[in-house]
Amino acid sequence: MSETFPEGLQDFLHALNEDMRTAADWGAPADYIPELAAVDPAQFAISVAMADGRTISAGQHDKPFSIQSVSKVFTLAAALGRIGDTLWGRVGREPSGTAFNSIALLEQEKGRPRNPFINAGAIVTTDALLDKRAPREALAELLQFIRYAAEDEEIYIDRHVAASEEATGHRNAALAHYLYSFGNMLNEPDMTLGTYMHQCAIAMTTEQLARSGRMLAGLEGAPRLISADRARRINALMMTCGHYDGSGDFAFRVGLPGKSGVGGGILMIAPGKASIAVWSPGLNYYGNSKVGTEAAHRLANFTGWSVFGA
Amino acid sequence: MSETFPEGLQDFLHALNEDMRTAADWGAPADYIPELAAVDPAQFAISVAMADGRTISAGQHDKPFSIQSVSKVFTLAAALGRIGDTLWGRVGREPSGTAFNSIALLEQEKGRPRNPFINAGAIVTTDALLDKRAPREALAELLQFIRYAAEDEEIYIDRHVAASEEATGHRNAALAHYLYSFGNMLNEPDMTLGTYMHQCAIAMTTEQLARSGRMLAGLEGAPRLISADRARRINALMMTCGHYDGSGDFAFRVGLPGKSGVGGGILMIAPGKASIAVWSPGLNYYGNSKVGTEAAHRLANFTGWSVFGA
Amino acid sequence: MSETFPEGLQDFLHALNEDMRTAADWGAPADYIPELAAVDPAQFAISVAMADGRTISAGQHDKPFSIQSVSKVFTLAAALGRIGDTLWGRVGREPSGTAFNSIALLEQEKGRPRNPFINAGAIVTTDALLDKRAPREALAELLQFIRYAAEDEEIYIDRHVAASEEATGHRNAALAHYLYSFGNMLNEPDMTLGTYMHQCAIAMTTEQLARSGRMLAGLEGAPRLISADRARRINALMMTCGHYDGSGDFAFRVGLPGKSGVGGGILMIAPGKASIAVWSPGLNYYGNSKVGTEAAHRLANFTGWSVFGA
Amino acid sequence: MSETFPEGLQDFLHALNEDMRTAADWGAPADYIPELAAVDPAQFAISVAMADGRTISAGQHDKPFSIQSVSKVFTLAAALGRIGDTLWGRVGREPSGTAFNSIALLEQEKGRPRNPFINAGAIVTTDALLDKRAPREALAELLQFIRYAAEDEEIYIDRHVAASEEATGHRNAALAHYLYSFGNMLNEPDMTLGTYMHQCAIAMTTEQLARSGRMLAGLEGAPRLISADRARRINALMMTCGHYDGSGDFAFRVGLPGKSGVGGGILMIAPGKASIAVWSPGLNYYGNSKVGTEAAHRLANFTGWSVFGA
Repeated sequence: MSETFPEGLQDFLHALNEDMRTAADWGAPADYIPELAAVDPAQFAISVAMADGRTISAGQHDKPFSIQSVSKVFTLAAALGRIGDTLWGRVGREPSGTAFNSIALLEQEKGRPRNPFINAGAIVTTDALLDKRAPREALAELLQFIRYAAEDEEIYIDRHVAASEEATGHRNAALAHYLYSFGNMLNEPDMTLGTYMHQCAIAMTTEQLARSGRMLAGLEGAPRLISADRARRINALMMTCGHYDGSGDFAFRVGLPGKSGVGGGILMIAPGKASIAVWSPGLNYYGNSKVGTEAAHRLANFTGWSVFGA
Repeated sequence: MSETFPEGLQDFLHALNEDMRTAADWGAPADYIPELAAVDPAQFAISVAMADGRTISAGQHDKPFSIQSVSKVFTLAAALGRIGDTLWGRVGREPSGTAFNSIALLEQEKGRPRNPFINAGAIVTTDALLDKRAPREALAELLQFIRYAAEDEEIYIDRHVAASEEATGHRNAALAHYLYSFGNMLNEPDMTLGTYMHQCAIAMTTEQLARSGRMLAGLEGAPRLISADRARRINALMMTCGHYDGSGDFAFRVGLPGKSGVGGGILMIAPGKASIAVWSPGLNYYGNSKVGTEAAHRLANFTGWSVFGA
Repeated sequence: MSETFPEGLQDFLHALNEDMRTAADWGAPADYIPELAAVDPAQFAISVAMADGRTISAGQHDKPFSIQSVSKVFTLAAALGRIGDTLWGRVGREPSGTAFNSIALLEQEKGRPRNPFINAGAIVTTDALLDKRAPREALAELLQFIRYAAEDEEIYIDRHVAASEEATGHRNAALAHYLYSFGNMLNEPDMTLGTYMHQCAIAMTTEQLARSGRMLAGLEGAPRLISADRARRINALMMTCGHYDGSGDFAFRVGLPGKSGVGGGILMIAPGKASIAVWSPGLNYYGNSKVGTEAAHRLANFTGWSVFGA
Repeated sequence: MSETFPEGLQDFLHALNEDMRTAADWGAPADYIPELAAVDPAQFAISVAMADGRTISAGQHDKPFSIQSVSKVFTLAAALGRIGDTLWGRVGREPSGTAFNSIALLEQEKGRPRNPFINAGAIVTTDALLDKRAPREALAELLQFIRYAAEDEEIYIDRHVAASEEATGHRNAALAHYLYSFGNMLNEPDMTLGTYMHQCAIAMTTEQLARSGRMLAGLEGAPRLISADRARRINALMMTCGHYDGSGDFAFRVGLPGKSGVGGGILMIAPGKASIAVWSPGLNYYGNSKVGTEAAHRLANFTGWSVFGA
């Protein structure tokens, strides 16, 4: 790492932003959610919440984007807070080896999703958080949880995106009904699905997202929302399962626990050092941000923050 | 961690050994390799090679055991040394979501194994290391690599175990012929299989194994056999794929890159801090050491070495 | 066959009924549809509609039962009548090699069910028959089709059974939403599902069912609802796919095209010779009538009607 | 059928031959067996062994071709003759829903192949026939069985084809070793594989093949090699499993029990009426003869021999 770090880091982020903006191939935005498909892929932002309490950024770091599956990290943390480790009786902790929306594995595993970060597992986690309440109530709790984590009251749910998903969410509906048929849903599928779709539609800037991850990085001054133990375990899940069937490659190339969303955001945790958010809406083959993954790779190289290095 | 660490660590290891010896359920040794099935499960050893150059141990740390799949780490390192990153054209880097000896996924992926730590991937890696040489030659190179890493010339291949496997290795033979049919084998299946079975039959003590992992932990004084970059990436693979379909759970509970073998050994890496080997021959549901996994869990808690914690 | 056939056949049916009534193990009724689970399994009926125009029976042949998946034969015939062979663009004609309600294969085949007799394929067929109409209209057409085929106006839909299924049909809802997500549904899932569940709830006696199959057997005097060509092809599908993952065994043991339902009914076709209906509500491992299958086996042996014999 | 049948049938076969010779697309010969890949695809022959004892033909009916998987019918008949119905403990009777050489299903079914006509099942059947004897002995018995069935001593094993397969048979070797690992092989894999490859290399003309099928059709004058009961059951298996993952479509379009081979041959049985062999070396998507399937379809239409028609 540059000797003048963290000063050098700010320079690095600016240079990285410049570099990324010349990307030959931004990838394509998710095409199955109309509101997202319309987003210009040639956008980029990165923010780093540091151990010293500062958050530094580059690019469009104050532009809210749809966090989509990144929300699964917060839902998991909130659900664990609500019902504790009994959640693990309903969802596993293993990589799936399949696409994020696969239903085949669910049949084989008799309705217990492999982990909370594939869609089926996130639906179960949302169902646990919902816990027979009105969706409005559970969503308010989740939003409050994230706002508190980021210390920012402006984080909101984008109703247009939520509505956009409802029209196309038949794959998720299939998962929900399937889980229900195995007795792994406590609420009516439509209740859980509505909650799930709204949580995916939470909009955040990279700055807000990076700050909300400080609790997972165990940074001093971060709001105390979860125990160190639980943070460590959520980080472990992000490492092994956070990028769907590209998780192994992300660990190999970047070496940080991370969770991606089809909105093009990625949240990464460097335990004890930083919480990082990157965003660029175009996706790669696995449904993870193409330019964002490249930026993560370079940042990890520059900082030496990989958890796998000496 | 105890303030008196690493002095406190020695005490902890002794206490851990005492505790583990009272295990109510040791698990059962692998039953499909006759030489291993005959091993007394009620055995335990742990060794920690530390940053200060010392290696401390408890239990039967000078008793050689069959490292079995732990050898896949060394074969991978040696094969990468021989042919470089072209290896990744032949084998992936993703968790498999299936048992260690599954062949179904291989059909779906058209003969490219998901990662180098499931049997199919390890056979491909061995095939790459063999590289049209005589098995004897490749095995000599591999053994030399490990001896050099451990700085111990006494590490050897247990011919009885190798012979024991040859009689029962039809599942591996199926994988090898299958890989061959997809053009993902350079050598005749029998050549690669013979090499593979002998490498699995390497015998080491926990002390030797812990010392051989120092290169991956990037400890000062460790023999320079691989670059820091490559070590980091091998560690990443150990984290996401090192315990077969129990990898996610190991990451969740222990938080260290690790590779297990059906001989009951586990090698774990705490980057910059230590290389750890634990051994107990009885296995759990996933084919990983039952008591060894528990010991790893406790050691991680005591030391705070999880890579996911602040 | 007895020389005095068909006179001998009536005697055989009576003897068969006597024999079946002493069954040591009737199997268990389908447990996932409350109205069916409550049915007494110790019931049996058989009817044979013959080439000479007569229908002979034994057992409880005038007791209506829920035909469930046997309805898929009629829906297929009616849908082919409505939209013709374009249906085959949406559903295949191959045995599935999996359970009747599997969703895994559907993922692999990208939303095109393997055949019209597994649930996914029947839902698509129903969707084709519904064809943007009100469910009531499509159901009226289907019921009229069956009544005409059986020349019996008393055939009806059992609303209690339909309601019973709606409460438990989440597995089918999962299939419907999944098909929709692949673009293989023309109507809203709820519309198609409602139609599907009502058609499964059609109640018939074995006598009515046997008579409704005369069109498939090509018996003289049968109402002309489908061409000989189409009848032949539906029979072929019944042979290869009519008993889910027990189709091969039914062909092997009985040798007649047949379609079973979880209500315990089986419709069998002996081309040019007879249409046969058997009913007994207890099911075997594959979800086909246990005693009914045994009776079919004995009838085939007695009559020599297997299509595979000289 | 033409009123002047069977006289009209001879004319029809000649016309069919003329028509087929103008095929726009013959398909491509199997490419993975070098000796077969070199065969000119633009060839055609058809032979019909009739109830009156005569065999009539058109095209290249006296040219031997490699029967390949058609041999599985004879091996099954011979193995059942040797060990009886205990064979069904080792192999199932259900369509597989997968490709002929799939290994994935075998893992799921724990080493019991779905039916005797996919490669895994045929290897088990061959293993049963081999029954600890020398391959030479079992092959002699099988060849004698076929020669006797066809009443033709000139049927032979093409050693060039057998050798050609041995060089490329790694997929089959994988299946054999895999079966062995599950305890479903009595002989050393190499012994069974050698036998299997030689039986696939049997060469026959369509005339010989049609005549050898008379026992299955139950034609008068056919050599009495198997009981009527067994013939009926083998026919059932040919119907549901004889064309791999194209079996349902063949039943739908042709309506006769049939077994195809990648050499381009198809044996079809019209119970009580005829045994038919057709040959054309180019294959369709499922690995069945392209022009041969079309010819079978037309023959079935002309004769009305479909077992599913009135």
